[in-house]
Amino acid sequence: MATVAMDSSSLLYPPPEVPKKLHIENREKLLKHLRESLVSSSRPSRGFVLLQGGEEQTRYCTDHEDIFRQESYFAYLFGVREPGFCGAIDINTGNSILFAPRLPSEYAVWMGEIKPLSHFKETYTVNMVHYTDEITEVLNNLHQGPGKPLLFLLHGLNTDSKNFSKPATFEGIEKFETDLKTLHPILTECRVLKSKLEISMIQYANEISSEAHIEVMRKVKPEMKEYQLESTFLHHTYFYGSCRHCSYTCICATGDNSSVLHYGHAAAPNDRTLRDGDMALLDMGAEFHFYASDITCSFPVNGKFTSNQCLIYNAVLDAHDDVISTMKPGVNWVDMHKLAEKCILQSLKKGSLLVGDVDEMMAERLGSVFMPHGLGHLMGLDTHDPGGYLNGAERPKEPGLRNLRTSRDLMEGMVITVEPGCYFIDALLVPALDSPKTSKFFNRDAITKFRGFGGVRIESDLYVTSDGCVNMSKVPRKIEDVEAVMGGAPWPVKKSVFENGGS
Amino acid sequence: MATVAMDSSSLLYPPPEVPKKLHIENREKLLKHLRESLVSSSRPSRGFVLLQGGEEQTRYCTDHEDIFRQESYFAYLFGVREPGFCGAIDINTGNSILFAPRLPSEYAVWMGEIKPLSHFKETYTVNMVHYTDEITEVLNNLHQGPGKPLLFLLHGLNTDSKNFSKPATFEGIEKFETDLKTLHPILTECRVLKSKLEISMIQYANEISSEAHIEVMRKVKPEMKEYQLESTFLHHTYFYGSCRHCSYTCICATGDNSSVLHYGHAAAPNDRTLRDGDMALLDMGAEFHFYASDITCSFPVNGKFTSNQCLIYNAVLDAHDDVISTMKPGVNWVDMHKLAEKCILQSLKKGSLLVGDVDEMMAERLGSVFMPHGLGHLMGLDTHDPGGYLNGAERPKEPGLRNLRTSRDLMEGMVITVEPGCYFIDALLVPALDSPKTSKFFNRDAITKFRGFGGVRIESDLYVTSDGCVNMSKVPRKIEDVEAVMGGAPWPVKKSVFENGGS
Repeated sequence: MATVAMDSSSLLYPPPEVPKKLHIENREKLLKHLRESLVSSSRPSRGFVLLQGGEEQTRYCTDHEDIFRQESYFAYLFGVREPGFCGAIDINTGNSILFAPRLPSEYAVWMGEIKPLSHFKETYTVNMVHYTDEITEVLNNLHQGPGKPLLFLLHGLNTDSKNFSKPATFEGIEKFETDLKTLHPILTECRVLKSKLEISMIQYANEISSEAHIEVMRKVKPEMKEYQLESTFLHHTYFYGSCRHCSYTCICATGDNSSVLHYGHAAAPNDRTLRDGDMALLDMGAEFHFYASDITCSFPVNGKFTSNQCLIYNAVLDAHDDVISTMKPGVNWVDMHKLAEKCILQSLKKGSLLVGDVDEMMAERLGSVFMPHGLGHLMGLDTHDPGGYLNGAERPKEPGLRNLRTSRDLMEGMVITVEPGCYFIDALLVPALDSPKTSKFFNRDAITKFRGFGGVRIESDLYVTSDGCVNMSKVPRKIEDVEAVMGGAPWPVKKSVFENGGS
Repeated sequence: MATVAMDSSSLLYPPPEVPKKLHIENREKLLKHLRESLVSSSRPSRGFVLLQGGEEQTRYCTDHEDIFRQESYFAYLFGVREPGFCGAIDINTGNSILFAPRLPSEYAVWMGEIKPLSHFKETYTVNMVHYTDEITEVLNNLHQGPGKPLLFLLHGLNTDSKNFSKPATFEGIEKFETDLKTLHPILTECRVLKSKLEISMIQYANEISSEAHIEVMRKVKPEMKEYQLESTFLHHTYFYGSCRHCSYTCICATGDNSSVLHYGHAAAPNDRTLRDGDMALLDMGAEFHFYASDITCSFPVNGKFTSNQCLIYNAVLDAHDDVISTMKPGVNWVDMHKLAEKCILQSLKKGSLLVGDVDEMMAERLGSVFMPHGLGHLMGLDTHDPGGYLNGAERPKEPGLRNLRTSRDLMEGMVITVEPGCYFIDALLVPALDSPKTSKFFNRDAITKFRGFGGVRIESDLYVTSDGCVNMSKVPRKIEDVEAVMGGAPWPVKKSVFENGGS
């Protein structure tokens, strides 16, 4: 019989209502920028934005359907949770039009009530709703002026996946002019800069995920399985937060697994048994109403940091804190990455793992041996939100920097993760120890002791404000706080505790 | 703050080891039947069975990857949990060959250790392992005899989805002869009749899912959300059972939702608040090592059946029990469906909801008004396992019967669900009340009282033995047992309790 207690509770239940204005504002923002762009290039401010939502998919040849999750650009503009929809915005009038699938009568028996179009009009606060088989007719009727109506369709590169978004298709599209170039960069840039209501969704996703991380910290102990930590997290965010989807597959890496950056997938499925003395690196975030969170906590599974664990943890925490205290609009993200690298290298030198001049180490890109991934990425409706390299902006080419998902200057309204890490990865350490350019920097005896240590990552979600940034992730970070919470101390420390002079 | 206690434990932790012989036996079974088929049609017993496993998929244009789940035919033969593999069986020698993807060196940094081919040879107990880019070379080298080697590829209709399985493709396939017809029906029929080791997997999936259903029964109460029941189920089966996947999307339907047969999807997402007096219909099953379970429990959310709830529940339970006590090899599944219908109609007549002659009701297919779905389906690596209508067998055409996923005679080794239900679905009831053929059977006053009742389904997974069948699902079914378990009584009732004379 398993003996881990599973009792729990939440300060965040019930989850908040989704504000109806959220997607209205998103559409208004797109309209404003699209009209500005058309005017500035002396094009008429008319035509229709047309997006196609996602369709239900079956698994291989079977009728198994995974839970549908809406395509993010479509979700941004319309917030529709059902499959099979299209949506249009009339650039001239600003009217929004949803096209719902015409469902067969059997749907009522198998899948549920066939909702009238008025239901979707009210739920998604659009101006009109028609059926998807009426797109051609409806848009042609709304079209004013000569010639074929113009459709602005979504087509553009996702610089993380290297995939292209799929423009809407429908029967009768040949009766329209189509523009595949204008919409994607403008809509993507709208998504980069979050509104207050978008921030409120990301904030809730962060809070329920933070609470779930703390729940895991309190329950973790040696001899558990990594997947039991994942299950605990998923349960807390779904049971109390109504979060049915995670932003990404949970990374529940312990021991040496914590040096595998994207651990947790089907070929490395969170199935190790936790051992006393292990570090755990838990990178887990729930999604609330399409909006992501992305939080990593690192801690010893037995609840007490060793001096070696302190050394690496504080190296990463200092980098995390230094970056956050430097972030504000105008600051360049590549510079932030380098700041984090430098901070970690300095700590490793101070801890006698490295020797020599830190600037020389930086010049040789030694930081990328310990932190091979980018410092962070834009986050929103997707964990890796688009817009990192807009309009053909080039990626840096150097080791470490080339994995940055953006090289942009920070702007007010961006949400970006700050996730420095320090890992002992044989596949990178061995070549660096052997390389004539970098071998001199290593204290080999000390480094040897850290082989098999795994790694530490500390990741928070930051909202860039007019003069700095706000950390949306509410988890304990200082070693004494982590140890206290793992020992059962309350978190967040309630104000009333201090007001009453209690502990 | 939410107040539902979440402490729990499991008698089933840790989950069992997967027997290595499972997939070896599956391959041997295919070889035997394939060779027999070739001999009987005077064809040479040589060539290769070649299957392509599933590939990782990204979501729309993003780099988001859902957790990979292997294609079921490939899983049947090779049990491989990683994406990107192919597998072959040499029909002449019986040798099994896995082809693993050749991973780039960065994989070691991002995804984990690049495992040597010997790792897969040992883990999946095959005779040889090569890389997928070596398929042409390896199979040509193994080929003995004149001409091009012959590949038996998988191509055939899934009669539930109407999709076709996708035959393997690879660079160099033009150097082979291919046969698209022979393999699918033979391999599908292998899957229809389960081995003892397959049964042991399905049995474990049933036991951990049964335990999780009981956990939900103990925790449920009015004012909870439907998704909290889903979350509790998922957590129990993952935390204690290591079941990362469900067999299908959880149906957590309460109140009137319980008349929606496939409730729970994105457009009807288990988000209702439970009310005192509601029936709950929970159709949830975990998957263990690819093998499904599929269990439905129905109960009042407040733990005490009303007389109306008793009436409908017992109508369905009698159908469930009558079918199970009649099932054995040779019995036809359409007859079992009709038996269930008749049983339910008799109970509804006894309960004064219907009037008239039950045989006349049967002739008018009145049963399909209350149970529009089929009585049950083959189950195994897929929830709706293939083989229901093999070799072009025709579906019945009458209402209710046409939704049967199989019309076969039962055979020893089949696993099939028995899931009678009785629902009050306006979309079916209203036309039936109006129809001159069926209106006479209804006691309108009584029926009116059940509008909005929802429905009851009772579903167990049955293993057909030489002289009957075994119920693999271990949940309480009798009303007194359901009420006792919901009130906190132990389940399964431990032998020792009786031995010691305790309660």
